[in-house]
Amino acid sequence: MSKKLINHPDDCVDEALEGLVMTHLGLRILGSQRVVIHESGRAPNGKIAVVAGGGGGHEPYAAGFVGQGLLTAAVVGQVFSSPPAGSILAAIRAARSSENDGVLLIVINYTGDRLNFGLALERARMEDIRVKMIICDDDCALSSPFKAVGRRGLAGSLFLMKTAGALAERGDPLDSIAHVIEEMKQSIGTIGASLTSCSVPGGEVMFRLEEDEVELGLGIHGEAGVKRIQMTTASKIIEEMLDRMTDSDSSSFFALPSGCSVALIVNNLGGLSIMEMYIAAREAIKQLESREVKVIRCYVGHLMTSLEMRGVQLSVLRVDEDWRSWWLTLLDAPTSAPLWPHPLYHDRITPERLSDEDYLGGNEFGKRGPSLSERGQRVLKVAIYGAASALESNVDYLNELDSGCGDGDCGSTLNRWAEGVRQIDLELEYPCTVLHQLCYLMESKVGGTSGALYGIFFATMARAFEDSDISGITAERWIQASKAGLEAVMKYGIVEPGDRTLVDALYPALNHLQLHSRPCINELLDDLWAACSVAKKAAKKTAGMQAKVGRASYVGEDQLTKPDAGATAVAVWFRGFVSALDAELHSVFCARRKGKSSSTSSSSSDEE
Amino acid sequence: MSKKLINHPDDCVDEALEGLVMTHLGLRILGSQRVVIHESGRAPNGKIAVVAGGGGGHEPYAAGFVGQGLLTAAVVGQVFSSPPAGSILAAIRAARSSENDGVLLIVINYTGDRLNFGLALERARMEDIRVKMIICDDDCALSSPFKAVGRRGLAGSLFLMKTAGALAERGDPLDSIAHVIEEMKQSIGTIGASLTSCSVPGGEVMFRLEEDEVELGLGIHGEAGVKRIQMTTASKIIEEMLDRMTDSDSSSFFALPSGCSVALIVNNLGGLSIMEMYIAAREAIKQLESREVKVIRCYVGHLMTSLEMRGVQLSVLRVDEDWRSWWLTLLDAPTSAPLWPHPLYHDRITPERLSDEDYLGGNEFGKRGPSLSERGQRVLKVAIYGAASALESNVDYLNELDSGCGDGDCGSTLNRWAEGVRQIDLELEYPCTVLHQLCYLMESKVGGTSGALYGIFFATMARAFEDSDISGITAERWIQASKAGLEAVMKYGIVEPGDRTLVDALYPALNHLQLHSRPCINELLDDLWAACSVAKKAAKKTAGMQAKVGRASYVGEDQLTKPDAGATAVAVWFRGFVSALDAELHSVFCARRKGKSSSTSSSSSDEE
Repeated sequence: MSKKLINHPDDCVDEALEGLVMTHLGLRILGSQRVVIHESGRAPNGKIAVVAGGGGGHEPYAAGFVGQGLLTAAVVGQVFSSPPAGSILAAIRAARSSENDGVLLIVINYTGDRLNFGLALERARMEDIRVKMIICDDDCALSSPFKAVGRRGLAGSLFLMKTAGALAERGDPLDSIAHVIEEMKQSIGTIGASLTSCSVPGGEVMFRLEEDEVELGLGIHGEAGVKRIQMTTASKIIEEMLDRMTDSDSSSFFALPSGCSVALIVNNLGGLSIMEMYIAAREAIKQLESREVKVIRCYVGHLMTSLEMRGVQLSVLRVDEDWRSWWLTLLDAPTSAPLWPHPLYHDRITPERLSDEDYLGGNEFGKRGPSLSERGQRVLKVAIYGAASALESNVDYLNELDSGCGDGDCGSTLNRWAEGVRQIDLELEYPCTVLHQLCYLMESKVGGTSGALYGIFFATMARAFEDSDISGITAERWIQASKAGLEAVMKYGIVEPGDRTLVDALYPALNHLQLHSRPCINELLDDLWAACSVAKKAAKKTAGMQAKVGRASYVGEDQLTKPDAGATAVAVWFRGFVSALDAELHSVFCARRKGKSSSTSSSSSDEE
Repeated sequence: MSKKLINHPDDCVDEALEGLVMTHLGLRILGSQRVVIHESGRAPNGKIAVVAGGGGGHEPYAAGFVGQGLLTAAVVGQVFSSPPAGSILAAIRAARSSENDGVLLIVINYTGDRLNFGLALERARMEDIRVKMIICDDDCALSSPFKAVGRRGLAGSLFLMKTAGALAERGDPLDSIAHVIEEMKQSIGTIGASLTSCSVPGGEVMFRLEEDEVELGLGIHGEAGVKRIQMTTASKIIEEMLDRMTDSDSSSFFALPSGCSVALIVNNLGGLSIMEMYIAAREAIKQLESREVKVIRCYVGHLMTSLEMRGVQLSVLRVDEDWRSWWLTLLDAPTSAPLWPHPLYHDRITPERLSDEDYLGGNEFGKRGPSLSERGQRVLKVAIYGAASALESNVDYLNELDSGCGDGDCGSTLNRWAEGVRQIDLELEYPCTVLHQLCYLMESKVGGTSGALYGIFFATMARAFEDSDISGITAERWIQASKAGLEAVMKYGIVEPGDRTLVDALYPALNHLQLHSRPCINELLDDLWAACSVAKKAAKKTAGMQAKVGRASYVGEDQLTKPDAGATAVAVWFRGFVSALDAELHSVFCARRKGKSSSTSSSSSDEE
């Protein structure tokens, strides 16, 4: 038995109707019947009532289309079973106006529905109720010869319901409405395709499709279609559907001559994802238009479903001749029916695109904030290049640390930033601008979580240099800016030290600088070297640390024996940055400084 | 790879967005970005812009909610992937008013979204655009302790979007709107359950559920939930969801104290049938109300989906305190967003039922048309009882004929009519009325196709006796009435002789009578006997006939070696009817007639 979110197979339809009536304005259930009627009750005097229905399992059809300007009442049977004539008669009695202006029944062509609605009609006539019945048979899938019962009724009947509702609302008499609807039904064709079957509550799936099969030309009761085709693209499936519909060798074909115009229904059979439904709608419109069929209305949604079937049906109504075009006014007429897809029509089907050229870009940044001396620019450039070189030299090492718990591409992605740094003209005169450039490179070249985190880091740093009133670009300001960047990273990423991220290295290093940095240049270099050691040590400590965020958080602690790639990358580029800075400053101050700089070739590997 | 109605995994989101924009009024795509913006473009001066978004695969979220009074723009990433910061920034630039009144970003809490929206925000601020970001984290499934990233953002964010949109529309300033939304987000909780997983285009299903399992507390990216429970009824699943949501032992619990009021979202995760969705909505409302939680708004539909997942999420917004109740005005404010479920709220959730007592019944029929003499009534009654007796005697025989190609219950169902005939007081004085009674018994006791066909037969016959001006109830009138009944059966059933139905016996028998019946009573009895033979012979001829309608049409000709049960039943009851009529008339006319009546005990079996 297939899994379903239900209570009991016998109660499905009743509970679904109750749910529908509980959650939408204007609907009422008629006593113990499966009849949904508008809260205002019977049709007003001078107006005919429109009643439709059929088996359950097709929700929202027909109960969701009860409302002013559409159905006066809907009658529903058990799942995929025609409603009994007694319920239909009760609906007719309850829906007709007090002055007995008449009732139009719109029925989809299935033996049970035809007979039970027919019987109800005959009984209603015995009570002197004026009733007419229109049987919709819009299916275009069956080829010759039909079974005697004729073509099936499908979602094309929605066009008839909507039109009859609009005509009734404006007070047209029964005979005249029936005449219009009889004429309209000749101008409707429908064809479906599905990736899966469905199952009646309490039952098994009604037919089986392999993973590479699509059922073409099926109805809405889980019965198999006319043809099984090989699974292929949406484009080819829609093409096959339209070919079948318009194949003049088939006795049920529907002509769509070049130059004609249609209203189109793209009906989700129940379980097709919304994404796929809109892909199908796009294909249908595009292919109709490429056949020179103009789609001037399109209704998309779950309209007449077949339980959870993952398929789609296309219904077209020709509206191109003069005598047909006034139908559009009726389709467009307002209705209060809660599930009629009323805003879903369109006079310009081609998707209009606004130009985005005014809204894109970001690598052109206005110069702003305080400026650096030429000397300062030179130092900054060398340091940035030093950081980039360090990353370039450690691609494989960082990738290897990242494998097993991440995508194994930490080194490669950061290297794209390093390459970018060399490719563009860094606007070194303005720290604010160059930081913005670094941010943009991170966003556009690195992307993903790391790119966004570094992007936020640089963007926030940039803001610390935004104000032109700032006097002097001191080491302290750089450190403060970095701290602000770090805080933004922690805020947006919701990460703290100990979460096995780049913060584990960046946080202690910047903290150290903030607490210990001294203004004198030589002392500052010592402090930077000390911070490098702090970063390196902290990165190493992430080995064995449990990740709390990102993909690594799904990997067990025991597998995280290596240091975190992100934290290690910080230690790498920070060392490259400081090392290059030291070399550059040293060459200026000519004061050979002790110790640390002995091993500072920025291109040395950090692997050990 | 799971079967999907798509063209290529890489194009899914773009094509779905195009489909959405092609089929709904008022939407535009921003250049080559996955950004949907209202056709009127940027927010009007004096109004802030509201921008939301996230990964694709959640359609219609967020693009379907772009419209006046809701989102100014929506940004979408690849399936289940955050949009890049560059696209978000483009959306911010395109959506903000010319006077730079500000932009509110509403983001669901996932690391990627938080970082990319955060980065776009920082970059927008660099351009002096006023931006604020609200992160929605409404998930109530996770128990303590959270992962550092906090609770996930789910469909509860729709409450925030709608409210922000309404506030923006009325011209509230950015800070004040952000304040309201921050406060509102504390009052939202969401929990989900699903019967199936989903698969990313081009990929495999993301987790597997057995046929007897339900996943509780899952998100919208195909990740598994917090608990797997045994498959059970909709009622128990909803109960488990609400218990989990309100479990004060869980650190993410959401309190729903007795007496509080909520707005409720019942979000279809993509593939749940509409029938099941409304069953779930009904359960959720009923169970909340039984916990003394008043549901004063309910939004049902596909709002924030997870591809084709067959599940449901419940989001609640507390609106019970004075400081919260004004939120309802904002939720109810009009919007042009095409997929906002705007009419789906309700002040009286209890499903109101109209009384159906005025519309039911049908076994009370006004007396109308010409009346029979007492003698005529006696004869009619005996003949009807004769038909009933014949059916009673042939239950097993007819059932047996029906087995193999039908339900095997043709005899049993018709016997219910025969029993009914004996149980009610037949209104024999008026042929019109008694025929109506026979019709109602067929409809109410037999049902199905046979009940409807015979119901139509009797109802149409009744109409031939409707007019009180009719003078004389002649044999000819009875025969004409029967022919009219037969024609209605053929019309509604779309059946002809040769289709292996009851028409195969009824048509030739009535035809014979129409052509040969003579007014003299003895001759008429002979004619009726001859018609009996015709019916019997015709019924026999249905053996081997291919069925064109009904269930038997799906059975091969070679298996249909027995005569059709429906046609045989006609021969049975017709013979019973004539035989009883003959006996009754004979007892009156005392003219022993030759031949046929020797074997006419109405209770004799027709098996041979």
